Amino acid sequence: MTRTIYYTASTLDGFIADPDDRLDWLLRQDLDEQGPLNYEEFYAGVGVLVMGSTTYEWVMRHEDGRWPYQLPCWVMTSRELDPPTTEGADVRFASGDVRDLYDDLVAAAGERDVWVVGGGDLAGQFADAGLLDELIVYLAGVTLGAGRPLLPRRLDLELVETARNRAFLTARYRVLGTLTEDR
Amino acid sequence: MTRTIYYTASTLDGFIADPDDRLDWLLRQDLDEQGPLNYEEFYAGVGVLVMGSTTYEWVMRHEDGRWPYQLPCWVMTSRELDPPTTEGADVRFASGDVRDLYDDLVAAAGERDVWVVGGGDLAGQFADAGLLDELIVYLAGVTLGAGRPLLPRRLDLELVETARNRAFLTARYRVLGTLTEDR
Repeated sequence: MTRTIYYTASTLDGFIADPDDRLDWLLRQDLDEQGPLNYEEFYAGVGVLVMGSTTYEWVMRHEDGRWPYQLPCWVMTSRELDPPTTEGADVRFASGDVRDLYDDLVAAAGERDVWVVGGGDLAGQFADAGLLDELIVYLAGVTLGAGRPLLPRRLDLELVETARNRAFLTARYRVLGTLTEDR
Repeated sequence: MTRTIYYTASTLDGFIADPDDRLDWLLRQDLDEQGPLNYEEFYAGVGVLVMGSTTYEWVMRHEDGRWPYQLPCWVMTSRELDPPTTEGADVRFASGDVRDLYDDLVAAAGERDVWVVGGGDLAGQFADAGLLDELIVYLAGVTLGAGRPLLPRRLDLELVETARNRAFLTARYRVLGTLTEDR
C-alpha cells in the first residue's frame, strides 16, 4: 500500500530553510547515516518523488546541476524551469491541483511510497486533500526565528516513532487531518 | 549554581500559542505527569519565575484570576497591569532590559533555577544577553502554521536529553549562543 510521506529536516522552531533558502545550519549537524529513520532506508522504500519549484531549484544549485535521483520526480511549478541535463534524469513538470497528479504518482510508485520532498506548502497541499499519510522529520538543535515553514497548516499528528540520531531529534508522525476546533 | 531555563510547550512547527494566544491544541494532549522532563520535578528545582505580559495575562485569564504560583514572579511589561488579588501572590512588575533584572532574579532564586515561563521573545531577550542556559520543550503533535513563536532568534542548541512522554516529544537543550554564520 503506497503511502505519501513528507520526509524532511527542520529547525526546532519549524523552518526547513532560512529566509534565503539556505541549509548551512542543517548540513553541519552531526548525523549517523545508519541511525534511526535514516535517509538510506527511507529512500529504499520510495518509488517516486514530488517537489515544489523552490526545492527543485535548491537541488539543482546544490548539486551543481547534476540531478541526484534515479526515480521519477514530479516538480510542481507555475513557472518555466529548465530540466536537468543529467543522463537518466526523469523530471516531469506539472502544475495545478495535487489531487489531479495523485493517481499518476501512485501508479509510478508501484509497491513503494511517494516522497514529498518539500517544501512545506506542497506538503500542505497534499494534507489539504487528505492525501498526506506521514511526516518524518529530523529536528536540528537550531532556531532561526524566520524562514521557510515546515508545514504551514493546522494539522493533528499522531506520534508513531521517535528516537535520537546524534544532534537530531527524529520522529515519524501519522497525519490525522485538519486540527479539530475545540474552543 | 542557578540556571536560567525556558521551560515550555510548542507545536511541532514552533508555536507556543495560536494567533489568539489560545492553547486548546495543547491542553488536550495526552501526558504522563510523572513522565520524562515533567513539570512537577522541574518546578521543584525553580526558585523564581519571570514572564512577559502576554503570558501573565494568559495565566490570569486561564486561572480565573487565581494566581497559581507561590514563588516570586517578575512580569516584564511596558504596560500597566493589575496585580493578582490572590493572598500570598508575589508578583513584581518590571520593564527594560533583562540584564538589569538578572542579579535580582538570581538572588531570589537562591540555590534553585530561574524559570523563563514565556513568551518566546522574553526567552530571546535572555538569549541575546547570553543569560539563557537551557531550553526544555514539550513538542505536541500539532502544526498551526501561525501563532506565537517558540524562540524568535538564531540560536545554536545542544541536545542534552530527549524522551517521549505519551503524545509529546520532550527535549532538553543547552543554549550554545547565537547561530554561527557558516557560509
